[in-house]
Amino acid sequence: MYRSHTNGQLRLADVNEEVTLSGWVQKVRDKGFMIWVDLRDRYGITQLMFDADRTDAAVLETAKTLGREFVIQVKGKVIERQSKNPNIDTGEIEVLVSDLTVLNQAKTPPFTIEDETDGGEELRMQYRYLDIRRNPVKESLIFRHKVTQEVRNYLSSDGFIEVETPYLIKSTPEGARDFVVPSRMNEGQFYALPQSPQTFKQLLMVGGMDKYFQIVKCFRDEDLRADRQPEFTQIDCEMAFIEQEDILNAFEGLTRHLLKEVNGVEVGAFPRMQYDDAMRLYGNDKPDIRFGMEFGELNEVAQHKDFGVFNNAELVVGIAVPGGNSHTRKEIDNIIKWVKRPQVGALGMVYARCNDDGSFKSSVDKFYNQEDLAKWAEVTGAKPGDLICLLSGDTNKVRAQLSALRMEMAERLGLRKPNEFAPLWVVDFPLLELDEETGHYHAMHHPFTSPKPGQLELLETNPGGVKANAYDLVLNGNEIGGGSIRIHDKQIQATMLKHLGFSEEEAKAQFGFLMDAFEYGAPPHGGLAFGLDRLVAILGGQETIRDFIAFPKNNSGRDVMIDAPAPIDDEQLTELSLKLNLKV
Amino acid sequence: MYRSHTNGQLRLADVNEEVTLSGWVQKVRDKGFMIWVDLRDRYGITQLMFDADRTDAAVLETAKTLGREFVIQVKGKVIERQSKNPNIDTGEIEVLVSDLTVLNQAKTPPFTIEDETDGGEELRMQYRYLDIRRNPVKESLIFRHKVTQEVRNYLSSDGFIEVETPYLIKSTPEGARDFVVPSRMNEGQFYALPQSPQTFKQLLMVGGMDKYFQIVKCFRDEDLRADRQPEFTQIDCEMAFIEQEDILNAFEGLTRHLLKEVNGVEVGAFPRMQYDDAMRLYGNDKPDIRFGMEFGELNEVAQHKDFGVFNNAELVVGIAVPGGNSHTRKEIDNIIKWVKRPQVGALGMVYARCNDDGSFKSSVDKFYNQEDLAKWAEVTGAKPGDLICLLSGDTNKVRAQLSALRMEMAERLGLRKPNEFAPLWVVDFPLLELDEETGHYHAMHHPFTSPKPGQLELLETNPGGVKANAYDLVLNGNEIGGGSIRIHDKQIQATMLKHLGFSEEEAKAQFGFLMDAFEYGAPPHGGLAFGLDRLVAILGGQETIRDFIAFPKNNSGRDVMIDAPAPIDDEQLTELSLKLNLKV
Repeated sequence: MYRSHTNGQLRLADVNEEVTLSGWVQKVRDKGFMIWVDLRDRYGITQLMFDADRTDAAVLETAKTLGREFVIQVKGKVIERQSKNPNIDTGEIEVLVSDLTVLNQAKTPPFTIEDETDGGEELRMQYRYLDIRRNPVKESLIFRHKVTQEVRNYLSSDGFIEVETPYLIKSTPEGARDFVVPSRMNEGQFYALPQSPQTFKQLLMVGGMDKYFQIVKCFRDEDLRADRQPEFTQIDCEMAFIEQEDILNAFEGLTRHLLKEVNGVEVGAFPRMQYDDAMRLYGNDKPDIRFGMEFGELNEVAQHKDFGVFNNAELVVGIAVPGGNSHTRKEIDNIIKWVKRPQVGALGMVYARCNDDGSFKSSVDKFYNQEDLAKWAEVTGAKPGDLICLLSGDTNKVRAQLSALRMEMAERLGLRKPNEFAPLWVVDFPLLELDEETGHYHAMHHPFTSPKPGQLELLETNPGGVKANAYDLVLNGNEIGGGSIRIHDKQIQATMLKHLGFSEEEAKAQFGFLMDAFEYGAPPHGGLAFGLDRLVAILGGQETIRDFIAFPKNNSGRDVMIDAPAPIDDEQLTELSLKLNLKV
Repeated sequence: MYRSHTNGQLRLADVNEEVTLSGWVQKVRDKGFMIWVDLRDRYGITQLMFDADRTDAAVLETAKTLGREFVIQVKGKVIERQSKNPNIDTGEIEVLVSDLTVLNQAKTPPFTIEDETDGGEELRMQYRYLDIRRNPVKESLIFRHKVTQEVRNYLSSDGFIEVETPYLIKSTPEGARDFVVPSRMNEGQFYALPQSPQTFKQLLMVGGMDKYFQIVKCFRDEDLRADRQPEFTQIDCEMAFIEQEDILNAFEGLTRHLLKEVNGVEVGAFPRMQYDDAMRLYGNDKPDIRFGMEFGELNEVAQHKDFGVFNNAELVVGIAVPGGNSHTRKEIDNIIKWVKRPQVGALGMVYARCNDDGSFKSSVDKFYNQEDLAKWAEVTGAKPGDLICLLSGDTNKVRAQLSALRMEMAERLGLRKPNEFAPLWVVDFPLLELDEETGHYHAMHHPFTSPKPGQLELLETNPGGVKANAYDLVLNGNEIGGGSIRIHDKQIQATMLKHLGFSEEEAKAQFGFLMDAFEYGAPPHGGLAFGLDRLVAILGGQETIRDFIAFPKNNSGRDVMIDAPAPIDDEQLTELSLKLNLKV
């Protein structure tokens, strides 16, 4: 038996007990005749004491050889501590050691195993097994476990059945790129790893499973933006015989449960916002509504003067930064620099200071008088002391730019509080989205999403105007889930695929099994998928997902710890009927 | 709202209530003026009634058009049934329909949606979404969900943390074949799909996670024997600071919990058997101990006469089939034919009838007298009325053959009762196994398994004799789990890999990250993995796993429903820097 107790367990009540402990050496303080060792495991830290008067000389000698991260086992007696440590659970006791066994030695770790480590990202990832010993990472992984347990228990008690869908499926060129898996037994053929279990969960609805969920890995071979992973985890859900309202209620319930159980936060009914309103008011389909700074559209009150920049713009739009008039000229210049960064892409920014006396001072006083500026203040909701920031240009671009500025200002003003939670449903997404490069429409959510009743006809005349029964769940400015009511009629699905540019043959080859299934009594159905990695990070009060993933990959899709991907044997390639075809 | 109740919900107490129901048409009985429809969903069946006197004529007309598996919605009033059906929960009521909406029509399904269907395996798999509507499949999937929920809740409450390990890892030629995944972003390089999360769970132990589990898909590109799947699910577990005894206790607890919660069966302490004893007594490392027929080894009492077949055999071994003397000569000839089938491979079988009067009659009376046969009976434990069956030959082969016969006879005698559960630990497995084709030893469990203390030295002199800290959990003749105490010392791991034929470079390239990790304070650790598909099937009283998997693949690794794997575009291949290299 390696231990009688963990290192987080012993209390004053255990004094005089003989115990066996195991763990890692966190710290050694050697005073010559006395040595203290902090012994660490997942559960906590226990202070060990070696005392020249009371500890066997050989044991004391061994204790002197201990280094950081050595794995040891000790036997000893629990005693009351002279100087107690109120910061740890075991802080009232220590263990006077009688026996010491070194279970394994340790080289000096390449970074300190402390909450604030000296290790950089790359080094921590290379030695991720050491990084996991650190509290912040360890606690994040335990937190993730807690969230998934809550999700599973909540959904199970609500009648959802977790069904495992296959990982080796079929490649469909639609959407993002698939990872493919060559089949040895079926020469020249490939499986694909699922980008999501979408078609399978729909087939489970056709199969009468009624309420399905699965916490499942999904795969996308995309060029990785920051904080994206080629493999990621979804909470994937689907229900039959439901309308949009049923879905929103079901998953609002789940989210509210998580906020309560995991964060201890009670939240009322989630507000709902039309997609169009989200874009108009926040320039964004996932607005952070923990704070204001709603957009004001200023075409009417800014395009009547001789200012060409505004007059030529499709949209003039602004926000009022609360208390922003306190910024110096230099600080405002820095904000302007910030919006002109290529990541944001604005060509410039017009601003107007709202003075405490009710007067205004703008960067375009040449064109606009106090009366004009007062209207700007009215439209943007600016109060004395605020700073009005205006961008102009093409509607889509300028909304995105102003949205970025709004988030940045909120960040600087400390308005994005990690422990405040503001969920929001964004509903009535467009069915289709214009790809500006190709001029083609593609499905905004996916090709199985149902148009709103009566809007199918619009597909011919105004495809961009068709609204879908599609919705996103937004939390603190992050999309944590999204879904839709699906098409369950073969004809409508065929029409939809035609509009998305699939030939009849392509549609049949790729989705024939689903459309066949629709002919055998498919029920109305719909669902939603949460991005678990992000959900957990946000509930954990963070926005980066990496510490909530045990073994994440870097931005080149590499696992630097195991050094994967890697070349494989020629023999393996031959067995798979493949040859390399390198571009060099 | 598509329904106010499910089809399993209404009772006598609901009579006179106006309800809305949705579901599939299971059956229509049209008596002209009255029509009854069985409406089905996941939760049950409710009888609908259309009555010319009380139902609107148009509704009645629509009802007459309903076919099997149509999806409909009805509104109506709950009434008490004239002739009650005690076999279903809703059997005391029916719904007098006032409104009927056909939500979706259905073509006639290719097989009947009944517990006993007329559809063959291939057809059922092609239309798996229809097959899932059948109770036996639906209930199996729900049962699987229940088992996994129990597993997760039990392990979580015991302090285990579920940690997701990556699916895109590194190929290691050791063991079975990997499925590989070409990396587009890392040209000419490949990920592999995990055969198990073995190295990652060990790294989590090095990382201090202490108690880990994961219910996780694993992948093996093997030529598929019957009832094997290229992707399968494991309950994967690992613990640190433990000895074998701790692991056995932990997972005996889990298994006992499942038997109790899922099957309502209370089981005492699981018996333990040495691997050597299992092979000697049952010819098998996963003996079914729900019944006797232990092997008797007869070399001493059968090699003293002039019977060359026995005298030249390495092992003469037999079982006493209870009541087997009732077999006719023809029936015994059929048993002999059975053991001579290529799947079993015996060259012949010697038998001895144990007559009720205590006398014997054998197929080798020419060589053996009553006194000899009495000794055979003693060694095999045969009683009057039994049939002694003897096989002879090379020890390994003949044990496997007699084990097959033992199982077959038990099957025929009805001794393999699906609702009787006999778990068993088989312990002290050999560390290495001789590959008779190559003459090389390979790891019986895997290369990270620890030899028993003090046996490392034997590796040089008697590799086949080294015992490992490895164990299997057996249930009703099936291995449901297996595991080992791992090596946690870099030097021992290096020695082990050397003995398995890895050069130092190979060892470093493939397992370098693990051996590096062992240098930074690796704790003693070990674990176990359950095969979930089989565990669920056996708890469900079955031995074939396919109906416990929503979308299984066939023996060629194909999903016949979605028709995968399939060829991919040349463009996809080019992006992956690959060319086909077909063998034709």
